Amino acid sequence: MRKSDSGWKSDAPRITYTTAIRVRYAETDAMGWVYYANYFSYFEVGRTELIRNIWRPYRDIEKDGLRLPVVQTGCRYISGARYDDRLEITSHLSLPSMYRLRFDYEITHADEGQTIARGFTEHCFVSADGKLMPIPEDLRNKVGQ
Amino acid sequence: MRKSDSGWKSDAPRITYTTAIRVRYAETDAMGWVYYANYFSYFEVGRTELIRNIWRPYRDIEKDGLRLPVVQTGCRYISGARYDDRLEITSHLSLPSMYRLRFDYEITHADEGQTIARGFTEHCFVSADGKLMPIPEDLRNKVGQ
Amino acid sequence: MRKSDSGWKSDAPRITYTTAIRVRYAETDAMGWVYYANYFSYFEVGRTELIRNIWRPYRDIEKDGLRLPVVQTGCRYISGARYDDRLEITSHLSLPSMYRLRFDYEITHADEGQTIARGFTEHCFVSADGKLMPIPEDLRNKVGQ
Amino acid sequence: MRKSDSGWKSDAPRITYTTAIRVRYAETDAMGWVYYANYFSYFEVGRTELIRNIWRPYRDIEKDGLRLPVVQTGCRYISGARYDDRLEITSHLSLPSMYRLRFDYEITHADEGQTIARGFTEHCFVSADGKLMPIPEDLRNKVGQ
Repeated sequence: MRKSDSGWKSDAPRITYTTAIRVRYAETDAMGWVYYANYFSYFEVGRTELIRNIWRPYRDIEKDGLRLPVVQTGCRYISGARYDDRLEITSHLSLPSMYRLRFDYEITHADEGQTIARGFTEHCFVSADGKLMPIPEDLRNKVGQ
Repeated sequence: MRKSDSGWKSDAPRITYTTAIRVRYAETDAMGWVYYANYFSYFEVGRTELIRNIWRPYRDIEKDGLRLPVVQTGCRYISGARYDDRLEITSHLSLPSMYRLRFDYEITHADEGQTIARGFTEHCFVSADGKLMPIPEDLRNKVGQ
Repeated sequence: MRKSDSGWKSDAPRITYTTAIRVRYAETDAMGWVYYANYFSYFEVGRTELIRNIWRPYRDIEKDGLRLPVVQTGCRYISGARYDDRLEITSHLSLPSMYRLRFDYEITHADEGQTIARGFTEHCFVSADGKLMPIPEDLRNKVGQ
Repeated sequence: MRKSDSGWKSDAPRITYTTAIRVRYAETDAMGWVYYANYFSYFEVGRTELIRNIWRPYRDIEKDGLRLPVVQTGCRYISGARYDDRLEITSHLSLPSMYRLRFDYEITHADEGQTIARGFTEHCFVSADGKLMPIPEDLRNKVGQ
């Protein structure tokens, strides 16, 4: 996998992982659809499972004294999801800089296939006392950067 | 306020405090009403404000190394609440034992007055390392027990 | 399966079903444990899967114009659950009266086996316009009552 | 307030409204801060109160058969908020097109003043059966567009 001269790029290698969830009644709202904030909770499920599968459980990362707070996020709502719908969350991980992780997500209806939402989260590693930390080398190796 | 011979009793003195909230869209569900779990979040608002007003902010209690986890809870749903409804949460605090706090709650519709839900939470004080602690004396004095 | 002279009883036949979930970061609180209200969302997952497996999807029940609101609930917190813990929710369904369904739940740690919480919810069937409805006969047959 | 020749612009007149909330324990996570998805619930409080104050309650808009779903959102997390923090949500409404509403939000710490998060939501009006509807003229008049 090549690394461009100018450093980290959006065409950098990406890791992909897909997981599935089912919409809970708790996550719907009076309009009858999943409340818009709850997609960010689904994104969390997506990146938790991606990280677990390519590297190690996020829980263990916290035990090592690292945190991975969100610094930016966004979501576009293409169509809606309803109670009991089975959804697939496809997550992509890329490393746009030495200090920044980016997950891109696509949520689709598991049975009918249509796209429900697309979003992203950007994170950085911080130590327990809040100091910005570089991305651990073994994670960079896993992502191929 | 009298204290019965046999010690802590349900007719023990009680502290009462009323606060108000407005139902958020996030808290409703596809049935069009507040999702049943969210009343427990309203109860939290009720006891936070009661404790702040009769004693001190719960945040400061945590800074002193104490925690107040819930050990038991219950709720009866009398009628429903909808998006944007203004609700009043009336909370009562009593101390059924040296180690147990009990909050009773009544949630009513602020404009129309009908009862929406009644519930309770029981708590104990624990230290940061999880050890059961007696109720602080100054809180017992405030409650009149 | 017998039915006692005095009507529906707590020793009535019960249906049991076990499902599993994993704790999301969204469901934890600043104390580091699952926030106490979120167990009621787990209970919802438990009864949704029980109903789906013994009868039919709750979504279809709503399509037939029936609703199953909660009229009462309770929970005892035995120990805590943390982020990423795998939990098992064992749900039991019984029908204490012609109009009342009761689910009892036990949440245990899937790996270590200890009990985390025990609770219940009681429900009734109502029509779309809010009228109390008897429990459908085919569900009563499934439960053996 | 001028309106540019070329139509709807980002320098279009904006309506501003500020409201306040207090962070609930339910909204924090195991990292000790407000969980990142919950800021979108705060944004909802901000736009609900803005709409109520400049136009009319969103509840009444729904009664008239209109819905205002979110089509896109984003948030940048500048610093964190903790349990019991008092936050101010300043919301701005602009109308980037005949069919699109945009709310920009800034959440600040009410006591110390620092910015906690900045975000936006974009919405469109749809009828009860999901058809895209133009922005009502009286709302356009209120915004000065």
